[in-house]
Amino acid sequence: MAHINLGVFVSGRGSNLQSIIDASAAGRIAASVHVVISDKEDAYALERARNHDIPAYHVPVGKNDTPEFVAADQRHVELLREHNVDLVCLAGYMRLIGPNIFAAYPEAILNIHPALLPSFPGTHGQEDAAEYGVKVSGCTVHFAWSEFDTGPIIIQAAVPVLAGDDGDSLAARILAQEHKIYPQAIQWCAEGRLRIEGRRVILEDARPPTIMEAIISPGLEV
Amino acid sequence: MAHINLGVFVSGRGSNLQSIIDASAAGRIAASVHVVISDKEDAYALERARNHDIPAYHVPVGKNDTPEFVAADQRHVELLREHNVDLVCLAGYMRLIGPNIFAAYPEAILNIHPALLPSFPGTHGQEDAAEYGVKVSGCTVHFAWSEFDTGPIIIQAAVPVLAGDDGDSLAARILAQEHKIYPQAIQWCAEGRLRIEGRRVILEDARPPTIMEAIISPGLEV
Repeated sequence: MAHINLGVFVSGRGSNLQSIIDASAAGRIAASVHVVISDKEDAYALERARNHDIPAYHVPVGKNDTPEFVAADQRHVELLREHNVDLVCLAGYMRLIGPNIFAAYPEAILNIHPALLPSFPGTHGQEDAAEYGVKVSGCTVHFAWSEFDTGPIIIQAAVPVLAGDDGDSLAARILAQEHKIYPQAIQWCAEGRLRIEGRRVILEDARPPTIMEAIISPGLEV
Repeated sequence: MAHINLGVFVSGRGSNLQSIIDASAAGRIAASVHVVISDKEDAYALERARNHDIPAYHVPVGKNDTPEFVAADQRHVELLREHNVDLVCLAGYMRLIGPNIFAAYPEAILNIHPALLPSFPGTHGQEDAAEYGVKVSGCTVHFAWSEFDTGPIIIQAAVPVLAGDDGDSLAARILAQEHKIYPQAIQWCAEGRLRIEGRRVILEDARPPTIMEAIISPGLEV
């Protein structure tokens, strides 16, 4: 199996970045983070990267469709190439990525979203789910398409919504699953076992789901 | 606990109707089916009802917003009242119900949908999910609002989508869960334990979810 090099885009505290670094350090995935890029200078994720001696860059992006945005897109590709990145991982990166990255990394950009897509796309997936009143939510790793949160789905994890949940408590329950499924999706990429057919992702030699039965929420009594 | 009388609307084979009849006969729910109404004369659900000596009616509905549709809406309410119905259950009824029923049964109309709403509303929830390529789908019982598949959610069950699934194989997996969650939602209505707050449903004294952990699909390997 090939070992692959990851470029991770972040905007926030970087807990998914950390789960990827940890999975890499433990040898659970044949991948390692070669560069971390943030649109926010004070993203704690940049500090995490530096703590692990991973090159970390702040690249200001400006508004969409401005010269600054176009320059950032070009700079992103330069950095990814300079660090020999094979696979781009968006991990809580709150901005659009530009057309140069899509051109440079066809079918090699992953995103994680804190809801069961296609439900609750956008930047507030957990809050939106809690407010809508669903009883089951979860998270999704998918190939990124230029339109947010729409690309072919690799893996999903479903969790129950509990009585009294708000966006924060639901987000914490979902995050624990994000930390499992993102390294898994990366590993399948490293193993070359994913094939995109239309908008479906086929995993060669898939295992049965980790829990095969249904989640029923709230719990049954009859 | 009050025993409640159900009026069930069907268009097809009526497997959810059967699960409700069975739960009632077994004493698992404090509810019994008093009348079954179908827009389709040859719906097998009507035969199921008659096999259990439940009054069963074919009420042609015509197109939406026609005099025939309005007459059907009035006839529906007459039949529900004549049979002392407390709670209306839509169980694979493929038509809109009219404003007279909503007026006569405020917050007392349930629907079941074969997807994790708000994903995949409409008449092909299972096929749409399979084609979209989600890795987790499921079913939803919710209070019906006049707009299809939008009302407050009472209970959901999530199931994994497996490699090679199509709409039919996924539908069968989901259906097994529908047969669990619809009787449960009816029982909570009979017990008077559901309260609608905005678009959330609060269940008094809810149990923890029947399976608390996540469903992760495909299964984890790392």
